[in-house]
Amino acid sequence: LSPRVIGVALLGVGVVGSGVAEALAQRAGELAERTGARLALRHALVRDLQRPRPFVPPAICTDRIEPVLADPEVAIVIEVLGGEQPAADYIRRALEAGKHVVTANKEVIAKFGPELLAVAQERGVSLLFEAAVGGGVPLIMPLRRALIANRLSSLEGIINGTTNYILTAMAQQGLAFTTALAQAQSLGYAEPDPTNDIEAHDAAYKLAILASLAFHATVRPEQVYREGITRLTDRDFRYARELGYAIKLLAIAKDDGEAIEARVHPTLLPEQQVLAKVDGVFNAVQIDGDLVGRLLFYGRGAGARPTTSAILGDVLEIAAAIALGQPPRTGNGLRSNRPIRPIEAIQTRYYVRLTVADQPGVFARIAQVFADHAISISSVIQKESDEDARSAEIVIMTHRSREAGVRAALASIAELPVVFEVGNWIRVESA
Amino acid sequence: LSPRVIGVALLGVGVVGSGVAEALAQRAGELAERTGARLALRHALVRDLQRPRPFVPPAICTDRIEPVLADPEVAIVIEVLGGEQPAADYIRRALEAGKHVVTANKEVIAKFGPELLAVAQERGVSLLFEAAVGGGVPLIMPLRRALIANRLSSLEGIINGTTNYILTAMAQQGLAFTTALAQAQSLGYAEPDPTNDIEAHDAAYKLAILASLAFHATVRPEQVYREGITRLTDRDFRYARELGYAIKLLAIAKDDGEAIEARVHPTLLPEQQVLAKVDGVFNAVQIDGDLVGRLLFYGRGAGARPTTSAILGDVLEIAAAIALGQPPRTGNGLRSNRPIRPIEAIQTRYYVRLTVADQPGVFARIAQVFADHAISISSVIQKESDEDARSAEIVIMTHRSREAGVRAALASIAELPVVFEVGNWIRVESA
Repeated sequence: LSPRVIGVALLGVGVVGSGVAEALAQRAGELAERTGARLALRHALVRDLQRPRPFVPPAICTDRIEPVLADPEVAIVIEVLGGEQPAADYIRRALEAGKHVVTANKEVIAKFGPELLAVAQERGVSLLFEAAVGGGVPLIMPLRRALIANRLSSLEGIINGTTNYILTAMAQQGLAFTTALAQAQSLGYAEPDPTNDIEAHDAAYKLAILASLAFHATVRPEQVYREGITRLTDRDFRYARELGYAIKLLAIAKDDGEAIEARVHPTLLPEQQVLAKVDGVFNAVQIDGDLVGRLLFYGRGAGARPTTSAILGDVLEIAAAIALGQPPRTGNGLRSNRPIRPIEAIQTRYYVRLTVADQPGVFARIAQVFADHAISISSVIQKESDEDARSAEIVIMTHRSREAGVRAALASIAELPVVFEVGNWIRVESA
Repeated sequence: LSPRVIGVALLGVGVVGSGVAEALAQRAGELAERTGARLALRHALVRDLQRPRPFVPPAICTDRIEPVLADPEVAIVIEVLGGEQPAADYIRRALEAGKHVVTANKEVIAKFGPELLAVAQERGVSLLFEAAVGGGVPLIMPLRRALIANRLSSLEGIINGTTNYILTAMAQQGLAFTTALAQAQSLGYAEPDPTNDIEAHDAAYKLAILASLAFHATVRPEQVYREGITRLTDRDFRYARELGYAIKLLAIAKDDGEAIEARVHPTLLPEQQVLAKVDGVFNAVQIDGDLVGRLLFYGRGAGARPTTSAILGDVLEIAAAIALGQPPRTGNGLRSNRPIRPIEAIQTRYYVRLTVADQPGVFARIAQVFADHAISISSVIQKESDEDARSAEIVIMTHRSREAGVRAALASIAELPVVFEVGNWIRVESA
């Protein structure tokens, strides 16, 4: 039985697109053996038609989407342009033209996923996006399929490799944030404009996708509470370590049956927990289901080759179905509208770092404010004092408290004459 | 759109079967919402028709397979009888009757998987077995689908919870093997007849399945080299820890392009490695692919609820496809016949524990034997001596060596007059 030839188009030939083109060129034979489908790259959408690209013959390059969409031999469109536009527009038009689409675009799927999935369903084509979250780590398919019988209660993960690299460098080398960022940039782990990563937009897009799938609900990226890593200092890492915690940019989604929580922010994690030990550019996601218990998925969350692994997994999922004469599953896009809990209503523990006057009675004043807001303190530790400035730094750990109360308490504390500065406050989770 | 009702039969209502029946009864509505398919349990094959079972109405119980196979309303048969027969026979007859089959039976799939998959393909039905390996941890679907574009070079895992519980108890509590086994039995983690687990038959079945999928080859269970955990002593754990290693029953599959290695045996693992930290009844599998890099999957490898999670994932995979009018994927059963490397030809490092005469020159004699077999020693450490017996215990760690040489060297060493006993020898891996 000779494999069926299936036409593919590649939108974008950057780092990831080049990886996909290379793999398509170099392993067409073995992939055909495994799936019964031989993938033929028919078009590559590029910006600069003159630039030579290995594994992409100039004859198939185009700088216009129209010939791609008009080619009836193209069954699958792979979108690796990144960014919102024109990627979202091209994906929609490809689906409307009856083409299956595989994308690595977390921003587009997070913002327009429900609408695009509806278009796909209407046209009877697939829209797959395993590569949008976790690089090569299979997360989307397990959530959509293998775990579908579970009621999932929480999903927590390190899903941005850039920030995890920076936080690991700050923790292990004692670097300041700006130094660690510069190091990450020089190694190519952070973009020249790092905003998307360090302000946690990227992680928020990914969490919106994961939470939507995990809880069968619509979680839009603007509903994800988002806090970046720029306020963390080397002192926070030192104090956290002394207390037995690591600091990670944790993406957290929870469903207690009443409301969904979805938030990405720096988090103190007890250092013996697995997620606390995920270092460098690695990603890990921990999922709790009522049947399955706790699962952990760990691997490379970014890079051309892991992303290519995920993209080709999706492409071959579609291609194998076509080769077998089975129209690929379009997926059930049905999602409920569930309440999203505002950040002020969450409950967790908190780490608070204050610079205060180095004089008697200060602890008592601060403790009283916490008590007035019904927040119990689990420890108050004086960390360092500056004799010249007659100031001291103290770290307070609270018991589980409602965020609104903590915010109100910190606003009052900032007004106290004995408090010079609220240095930082960080949520503490013990997953 | 009302969900399509899909008839299901359950073969076996033991611990796992009861879990499946409970989940089917208690979450039919939400599963129908998620998949468009409402599962209706139509038959339960049991041994004792008189015994009452929660979630299984007596009216649907039968002690004969024929009415199950003859019912045209049964689309999916769930086999959770366990053991080789009659499970293998029932699975075959169900497939031949045009029914999709979901099974948790590692023994049947390891022994008869290729033949049964061929029957399924011929009849245009699915045979899925996610629950056969790793309990609720999704492993089969990622290997068959998400990772399909990769060339996988190795797969290593802790895939038997019973032995991992026993080894963890020996390591952490210093228990002897028989005491740890008795503890596991009293907690229900080990069977009254523990042979299948402690002699690594269970892990060998699972590894045969994983290796077959990972390398697209036929790896039969009798081709898996298998060594149980009964020879391990508390001293091995103590010495391993002193050297910086944990001892795990590791399932190892490798493909270097020339031959496939598939082996399950006690293994020294450097204690900082993730797999060395997987304790108790948990399972973990680490996969290395050329695109994806290293992946790790971790979770509960056994138990009614995790196994139910995996079984229902497969059942709903099939049911959702039927509900959408799409015949489920039968899978491409094509597998190459690849050479399997005999255990004598593998190369790894070795830990050797010897009881020797406590006198000068002994080290030299032993070292000469290793040298004669071209095995380099990385360390020789005298651990303990017994003044009365004039004996000492020494531990030797080798560099990477060919197993045939190590076996020959140990046979010669056992003959030396200064050697009282070859206490144990254990392979060392640093994944």
